Amino acid sequence: MELWFSERHTPHVKLSIRVEKQLYSAQSEYQRIDVFESKEFGRFLTLDGYLMLTEKDEFIYHEMITHVPMAVHPNPQNILVIGAGDGGAVRELVRYQQVEHIDLVEIDGLVIDVCKTYLPQIASGFDEPRVHIHLEDGVKFVRSCENKYDLIIVDSTDPFGPGEGLFTKEFYGSCYKALREDGIMVNQHESPFYVGDATAMQRAHKRIVDSFPISYVYQAHIPTYPSGHWLFGFASKAYHPISDLNMEAWNELGIKTRYYNTKLHAGAFSLPTYVEELLKDAE
Amino acid sequence: MELWFSERHTPHVKLSIRVEKQLYSAQSEYQRIDVFESKEFGRFLTLDGYLMLTEKDEFIYHEMITHVPMAVHPNPQNILVIGAGDGGAVRELVRYQQVEHIDLVEIDGLVIDVCKTYLPQIASGFDEPRVHIHLEDGVKFVRSCENKYDLIIVDSTDPFGPGEGLFTKEFYGSCYKALREDGIMVNQHESPFYVGDATAMQRAHKRIVDSFPISYVYQAHIPTYPSGHWLFGFASKAYHPISDLNMEAWNELGIKTRYYNTKLHAGAFSLPTYVEELLKDAE
Amino acid sequence: MELWFSERHTPHVKLSIRVEKQLYSAQSEYQRIDVFESKEFGRFLTLDGYLMLTEKDEFIYHEMITHVPMAVHPNPQNILVIGAGDGGAVRELVRYQQVEHIDLVEIDGLVIDVCKTYLPQIASGFDEPRVHIHLEDGVKFVRSCENKYDLIIVDSTDPFGPGEGLFTKEFYGSCYKALREDGIMVNQHESPFYVGDATAMQRAHKRIVDSFPISYVYQAHIPTYPSGHWLFGFASKAYHPISDLNMEAWNELGIKTRYYNTKLHAGAFSLPTYVEELLKDAE
Amino acid sequence: MELWFSERHTPHVKLSIRVEKQLYSAQSEYQRIDVFESKEFGRFLTLDGYLMLTEKDEFIYHEMITHVPMAVHPNPQNILVIGAGDGGAVRELVRYQQVEHIDLVEIDGLVIDVCKTYLPQIASGFDEPRVHIHLEDGVKFVRSCENKYDLIIVDSTDPFGPGEGLFTKEFYGSCYKALREDGIMVNQHESPFYVGDATAMQRAHKRIVDSFPISYVYQAHIPTYPSGHWLFGFASKAYHPISDLNMEAWNELGIKTRYYNTKLHAGAFSLPTYVEELLKDAE
Repeated sequence: MELWFSERHTPHVKLSIRVEKQLYSAQSEYQRIDVFESKEFGRFLTLDGYLMLTEKDEFIYHEMITHVPMAVHPNPQNILVIGAGDGGAVRELVRYQQVEHIDLVEIDGLVIDVCKTYLPQIASGFDEPRVHIHLEDGVKFVRSCENKYDLIIVDSTDPFGPGEGLFTKEFYGSCYKALREDGIMVNQHESPFYVGDATAMQRAHKRIVDSFPISYVYQAHIPTYPSGHWLFGFASKAYHPISDLNMEAWNELGIKTRYYNTKLHAGAFSLPTYVEELLKDAE
Repeated sequence: MELWFSERHTPHVKLSIRVEKQLYSAQSEYQRIDVFESKEFGRFLTLDGYLMLTEKDEFIYHEMITHVPMAVHPNPQNILVIGAGDGGAVRELVRYQQVEHIDLVEIDGLVIDVCKTYLPQIASGFDEPRVHIHLEDGVKFVRSCENKYDLIIVDSTDPFGPGEGLFTKEFYGSCYKALREDGIMVNQHESPFYVGDATAMQRAHKRIVDSFPISYVYQAHIPTYPSGHWLFGFASKAYHPISDLNMEAWNELGIKTRYYNTKLHAGAFSLPTYVEELLKDAE
Repeated sequence: MELWFSERHTPHVKLSIRVEKQLYSAQSEYQRIDVFESKEFGRFLTLDGYLMLTEKDEFIYHEMITHVPMAVHPNPQNILVIGAGDGGAVRELVRYQQVEHIDLVEIDGLVIDVCKTYLPQIASGFDEPRVHIHLEDGVKFVRSCENKYDLIIVDSTDPFGPGEGLFTKEFYGSCYKALREDGIMVNQHESPFYVGDATAMQRAHKRIVDSFPISYVYQAHIPTYPSGHWLFGFASKAYHPISDLNMEAWNELGIKTRYYNTKLHAGAFSLPTYVEELLKDAE
Repeated sequence: MELWFSERHTPHVKLSIRVEKQLYSAQSEYQRIDVFESKEFGRFLTLDGYLMLTEKDEFIYHEMITHVPMAVHPNPQNILVIGAGDGGAVRELVRYQQVEHIDLVEIDGLVIDVCKTYLPQIASGFDEPRVHIHLEDGVKFVRSCENKYDLIIVDSTDPFGPGEGLFTKEFYGSCYKALREDGIMVNQHESPFYVGDATAMQRAHKRIVDSFPISYVYQAHIPTYPSGHWLFGFASKAYHPISDLNMEAWNELGIKTRYYNTKLHAGAFSLPTYVEELLKDAE
């Protein structure tokens, strides 16, 4: 069966995945949601035709967006996760005993339902009593929070469509206010490689730099994302992402990971020269 | 014009690049050679239908296969480059004043001619008097060398077709013998992500580990290679890739790069857990 | 959403249809069955990845495989349809009052069920009392019939996989025997354009010519089949496909069609010179 | 080598041809011109990314656009061909001894040069002394002609871009005037199948019907054109395309063809019901 899903990374490049069959397709109030089965990547989720995650490589994204800040913050108890209706970030966070409360804010409840049904190994943490789901607009939710969270994870889609508001200066300001005095914000930060992605990345970076005293960018290899070179933003009120990393403490937790490790932690912040220059140009 | 070049990274995944026009196509004694023009990547070279390099991202590969060992070895004067008929590795090496002699061994002279004509910014170092081109089989060439080189760069194609011999135990043994007592061998080491590539990578790694006392693997983001996550092997008789790095010395050389920098140098050796496990399984 | 179904018409040509969503996918005892929704063609059915029919152009195939013989035979009462689990041929046949009995022999009952559910406008005749469904191998079914049918319609898949037996000399011989003394057999006859299809077409033609005294080939434009140029075989014991056509009688029936008409009837037997030569070569 | 040329027949359907290599690419004053080599179709020509002809199936188009009117007109001596810079129509016309003069009007001289170089078996008639090439706009050229031609062949591209003017009422009026009192005009008439093509076809048909007393449409199977079902317009001042066909006379000429024959001639005018209805709706 020649059935292929393609994503155009630019008008001139596309990545195509052979589909075994489609498992789900619906239009929610916010977006089109599809789940496919593939030989190479297992199941994968798309929103409005953009690939969000695959069973094969989602661990990279979810480990890197959670364990990096969790290994830096000495005592993250109260966490806000915005977007991330797939549950992958929550799945990683509930592995930490010291976490007491996780607010998950997802605008589209259907994404959560679909992931529970079709991607249960990713959406595995939703039933934990520490996890509180809010079907709301993340921008509005965080506006009313103050001095509340140790960590905010902005696990957004791209900076257009439903995820657009999660890349605004106003939103980053709200996040700053919603964090405790030593709080950390981590966000998915787009890619530096293709011009369109890089421009979005620079714009987001500029706004974060303007909002937080400490702001760094780190990277991971995510093969199913455009260019495979993906960035995350680490913004913080107090902690430095490398010098405040407590390797021993994290390793003693015994959390088994497949991508993240404390040696890679520092390396992930060592960016290629051209990426550093893009960031400097934006600052 | 809907004209697309595709490379199947596995039978179930393909990366497709829109082609503006084809600039060259011929069958050499060894392989089919094509050069295309594209909007996104500029010109790109394929051998037997496999993408070798693009003008847009070749700098990543060529900087990482050369500057990493060059920044570790205190005085690399005599260098052997095997494969690499495109000239990208040589272009980087001739930027070092202390290099006295570079032997480039390429089995297919037509690759050199084509790159000189169609990719002159990559094939820019061939006319340097320090560069000596040998149109020979690299396996045979290195067999007759002894205690001669400070650095051997194995810039091979994939471990099938013309490049197959450059992944054998016998070849790595010859390289060891051909190196001086503090010599370094660096090789393109395939990718850890897709099963087929990972298996080839493990096989190569095992053979290098068996041949050299010091053997490490480092990584880079190369968007046009399968999965975008590419590895290089660093094998050495004496130097450790990180503790023997002399950051200051390298930075004083004033070599302007776009991907490599001495901070990223160490980070590139910090591998994801699953890659470390693949390497350990192979060792 | 970039989701495309492709069928390779040869290793070097493919027709691709953008899919809105997949409606059904299952593996039956005999083959993989899929139903897709598309903007251009409405729903379409594939068996083992080969396109069988689309809502947009199925009328061409089904009208041409039924009305051509029905307009020639003066009194077709008892009809055997082999294959055709989609029901399109039956839908056309039950429009004739004089038809008393239709045996539909389909090896794969799941095809019938799937078409009833997902393609109800095609599978609309199955509940007629005149239609008798036999879930059997057509080759075996027809072997035991003698002097029974006025018309046999062989609505097969391609000459490999489950449909292979419906292209054998033995099968055509059985059909001859199963027909009354003035019976007609019509079969889907592949395409003359691509070499592989043309070879299969010639082989079938030779076998039919050897089995029947009267044997002609006619054509239709079916855009979603390879090359769009499709043939049907008209084999007969007594009637000539053109001189025995009773235009007036057929037009008086008042059967409304979208492709077939009695003027086109004769034209469909006027084949291009190269097709005539392929047929002559085979005879 | 996975290098594919695709043409979108609609936004939701595409035909893709595997390319062995590209032989030519240039931008003329009017359009982009490309020639490709393929395993399945031999060489093929595209203008602005639209497939114009392939070596494998061009004979169908060129035989049908020429021999149909040539077999009807009793003495075609002076012929005007508009468009058709590939030379295929001229190649067929020069096979007739009675033709004394052919004016070929092609706006883009580069098309002629490219076809002479890369498609010499198609562009084979240009050097005949009876053939007179005019590198001009066909619309302007025909405007100044009066009572001059026995046959005008409008071998245009699609009704947008350089070919747009060849589908206007004014142009058809000029053709009428340019024809002798028993002259015939034949034109490529688009396809009835996909909505966009069918609308263009209806519009052209309406304008021709309004300009000529006798106007018919005939069809051919052209596998590489959208849907494979292609139409031609036959407009005439005096002759009926079927009743004035002199089969014997044409067959005595001994012109060997691969698609056209005098039996198929009449059949080609027997259109499917839905096509007849489209034409009636337009009239």
